[in-house]
Amino acid sequence: MARPSRLTDEEVQRRLGTLAGWELKDGKLRRTFVFKDFAEAFAFMTDVAREAEALNHHPEWSNVYNRVTMDLVTHDPPGLTALDFELARKAETSALRRQ
Amino acid sequence: MARPSRLTDEEVQRRLGTLAGWELKDGKLRRTFVFKDFAEAFAFMTDVAREAEALNHHPEWSNVYNRVTMDLVTHDPPGLTALDFELARKAETSALRRQ
Repeated sequence: MARPSRLTDEEVQRRLGTLAGWELKDGKLRRTFVFKDFAEAFAFMTDVAREAEALNHHPEWSNVYNRVTMDLVTHDPPGLTALDFELARKAETSALRRQ
Repeated sequence: MARPSRLTDEEVQRRLGTLAGWELKDGKLRRTFVFKDFAEAFAFMTDVAREAEALNHHPEWSNVYNRVTMDLVTHDPPGLTALDFELARKAETSALRRQ
């Protein structure tokens, strides 16, 4: 896969505007998802893990019972790239099915 | 399942002594596991998620690529109980198979 380019601040803001519920936090894309229970939260994580492997782009994330917080960022090049927004969109799609 | 009792500090220390790599951190049992890659780390999380559901006792945990950090604590009663050590042992068993 071609190495993605770092997005400009303007492009990050434009793309953020198309994603409900996500914010910029310490230079990363962040969202917390809340599910019915642990089983649903982990089913969501399993979906996202599969997408992350397919993209070869992985989230930083944490889970406490029914809550999953994701932080998306690219290390090479450092910053936000199209891959972060692509993984965010995949997560949205999975979460919508499960909430 | 019977509600577990909060363990005394002495009992926590005794049990900690039987678990390699775990420490007490902010009143919780903590360990970071390191795997070969994301796929192995997430396979471990899938094992632990199944055990957590079986015990009805869930970890607070985070994952960044090949690293998984687990924090185990009981909310009712607040503190550490036998369930925390049981889930720690299940995690150990799974990690040993995958490292």
